[in-house]
Amino acid sequence: MQYSKALFAGLLATSLIGCVEKSESEAAQGAGADHQAIQDTNAQWLRLIKDGNSAAVAELYTPDGAIMPPGAPKAQGPKAIEKVWRGLMATPGFRLTFKADDITVSSAGDMALDRGTYRLETGSPSASTQDVGKYVVVWRKIEGKWKVAADIFNSDGATDQTST
Amino acid sequence: MQYSKALFAGLLATSLIGCVEKSESEAAQGAGADHQAIQDTNAQWLRLIKDGNSAAVAELYTPDGAIMPPGAPKAQGPKAIEKVWRGLMATPGFRLTFKADDITVSSAGDMALDRGTYRLETGSPSASTQDVGKYVVVWRKIEGKWKVAADIFNSDGATDQTST
Repeated sequence: MQYSKALFAGLLATSLIGCVEKSESEAAQGAGADHQAIQDTNAQWLRLIKDGNSAAVAELYTPDGAIMPPGAPKAQGPKAIEKVWRGLMATPGFRLTFKADDITVSSAGDMALDRGTYRLETGSPSASTQDVGKYVVVWRKIEGKWKVAADIFNSDGATDQTST
Repeated sequence: MQYSKALFAGLLATSLIGCVEKSESEAAQGAGADHQAIQDTNAQWLRLIKDGNSAAVAELYTPDGAIMPPGAPKAQGPKAIEKVWRGLMATPGFRLTFKADDITVSSAGDMALDRGTYRLETGSPSASTQDVGKYVVVWRKIEGKWKVAADIFNSDGATDQTST
């Protein structure tokens, strides 16, 4: 019985340590995979913007997700978000790119902070307006997929630069 | 030995279930406490703004935290953040309030999304300018304290409303 108790204590300790180690190891692996998944979703987002697919862009957000553009109240939910993107994409000469500067994933891999910069060009090539600014996107993992819970941005400059 | 094995299996199962249940229960309790801690820090932040204490406001941010105001590049790190707040507070008649609309805490209680609205008044009471807008603050728990990792906001209106 002494042997059995020692074996039990040993196995119990191993199983508990195993549990902690596994979750830490999973967290580390998960953070890398989550980071990549968010980068991939950003790449997909940029392709959808280029294609002018506002409906598919709206699907990148969580059901209670919000886009918070300058000069307008926040738009929450898929329909309102789709409308904002449709309006943006209808701007003559609309060309938008953005780039994540740093992405921080929460330890359980269910939330992430994405800070970055954007560049927006509108107008014709001979009379275009450029706007450079910054953004924050907060990602949440919903049923295994990273979705946008909050999307907010603003310009670095007080006035747009116009090249004519 | 059969009894001993059954006892071992039972205790092992109990310890593993206990581990999972404890972490779930802790997460639920933690989310409520974290939510409250963030609300408390927001209340502290508002008091410091009222006091014009830009140095203490800057200490609310993480070491790599950033404030991203409209019309200027992002300011990262305590010194740059303090400078932005000092500038804001030096605006004649500066009165800023804000209110969280919803706060979502990550499951491990290490990151939180805070979406809300602000109201900024500047100028003299007889000729004041009001600006209403929205914000996103992303909180991270650093050594047990909730700190601001990202702070970004923009106006709801294309132009400020001036009451004269």
